[in-house]
Amino acid sequence: MIVRIAELEIDADRIDAFNALISEEIEASVRLEPGVVFLFAVSVKGRPDIVRVIEGYANQTAYEEHLTTPHFLKYKTETADMVKSLRLIETDPISLKAKTQISN
Amino acid sequence: MIVRIAELEIDADRIDAFNALISEEIEASVRLEPGVVFLFAVSVKGRPDIVRVIEGYANQTAYEEHLTTPHFLKYKTETADMVKSLRLIETDPISLKAKTQISN
Repeated sequence: MIVRIAELEIDADRIDAFNALISEEIEASVRLEPGVVFLFAVSVKGRPDIVRVIEGYANQTAYEEHLTTPHFLKYKTETADMVKSLRLIETDPISLKAKTQISN
Repeated sequence: MIVRIAELEIDADRIDAFNALISEEIEASVRLEPGVVFLFAVSVKGRPDIVRVIEGYANQTAYEEHLTTPHFLKYKTETADMVKSLRLIETDPISLKAKTQISN
């Protein structure tokens, strides 16, 4: 399993629109893509323009396929002018535990 | 549900010991505490000394109780001289989806 973290800064005037689009994209990705294990989007408390997305994929192929899906491309296109900066962080998992099994 | 992110810098000479202690703490927390929904510890790829912990709790009380458990206090005490810096980030969830239900 691979975990990635995206750090985004959003145009402060477009936060509601951005949150709606990323929520739609997350719902579709987890429902439709077998290899998308979890997607968690949060904002820093008191800074709704500072967003972090924690992304869990079954493997590298699942991540690469995710980037080609219609729902991801719609999100990417429609949020392009709302995102002021984007930093993608690759990680090595140390320990990943959840109350119930979150992967298949 | 509340999500918190901890950003840690670990003494580069103590990484294996730190990873063993945090893995033990995560396993016990998710197994023993009803309100600990998930705990994910990862390091930045190529930087095993830069660690992020993404923490999901059922509510604020569950988080506060977690801080008083023997396994958390053991982790906190035994890693105290391994952790060079710690930043705790409170968040507001935007969307949290996983392949299967991760909370009770």
